[in-house]
Amino acid sequence: MPEENIVYIGNKPVMNYVLAVVTQMNGGLSEVVLKARGRAISRAVDVAEIVRNRFITDAQVESIDISTEEIMNNEGTNTNVSAIEIQLSRDDTSI
Amino acid sequence: MPEENIVYIGNKPVMNYVLAVVTQMNGGLSEVVLKARGRAISRAVDVAEIVRNRFITDAQVESIDISTEEIMNNEGTNTNVSAIEIQLSRDDTSI
Repeated sequence: MPEENIVYIGNKPVMNYVLAVVTQMNGGLSEVVLKARGRAISRAVDVAEIVRNRFITDAQVESIDISTEEIMNNEGTNTNVSAIEIQLSRDDTSI
Repeated sequence: MPEENIVYIGNKPVMNYVLAVVTQMNGGLSEVVLKARGRAISRAVDVAEIVRNRFITDAQVESIDISTEEIMNNEGTNTNVSAIEIQLSRDDTSI
């Protein structure tokens, strides 16, 4: 998967990330992976839904994975945080 | 799927929902579906991860679906909200 591309979802407005995904897909990438942790997980789902409902209607959710990551907080102790990976794809033929 | 059971994830503490899922699975249900909308989506992922990492280690994420639902707000207009469904299952043989 050499053309795989990752968009990390953080705390910016949803449309920033939607624009990033749409730009990449319209630039010829047939696959984009959205990654988010913690509270940004809901925003990642919003991004995927807005992209495929409003902008790239032939895009599909290829797979969704959830996992737990260990991160170190400011006090130096480890906490667990949930993470999500949403793989969006479109057929190469439709580009 | 007559034994299917749904846990709706809302704004209560995560462990309330974890307890609900663990109780149902230990009561003999081999499958539980977590449903959440909007900001509760992150919490649903937390619940799934905590259940399978800490309480029911043979539980698996069977499938994850995301969708968009139209809800009516207080002013009577419709808004779109993202939704998630996480299907957790364990082998019947292990109960």
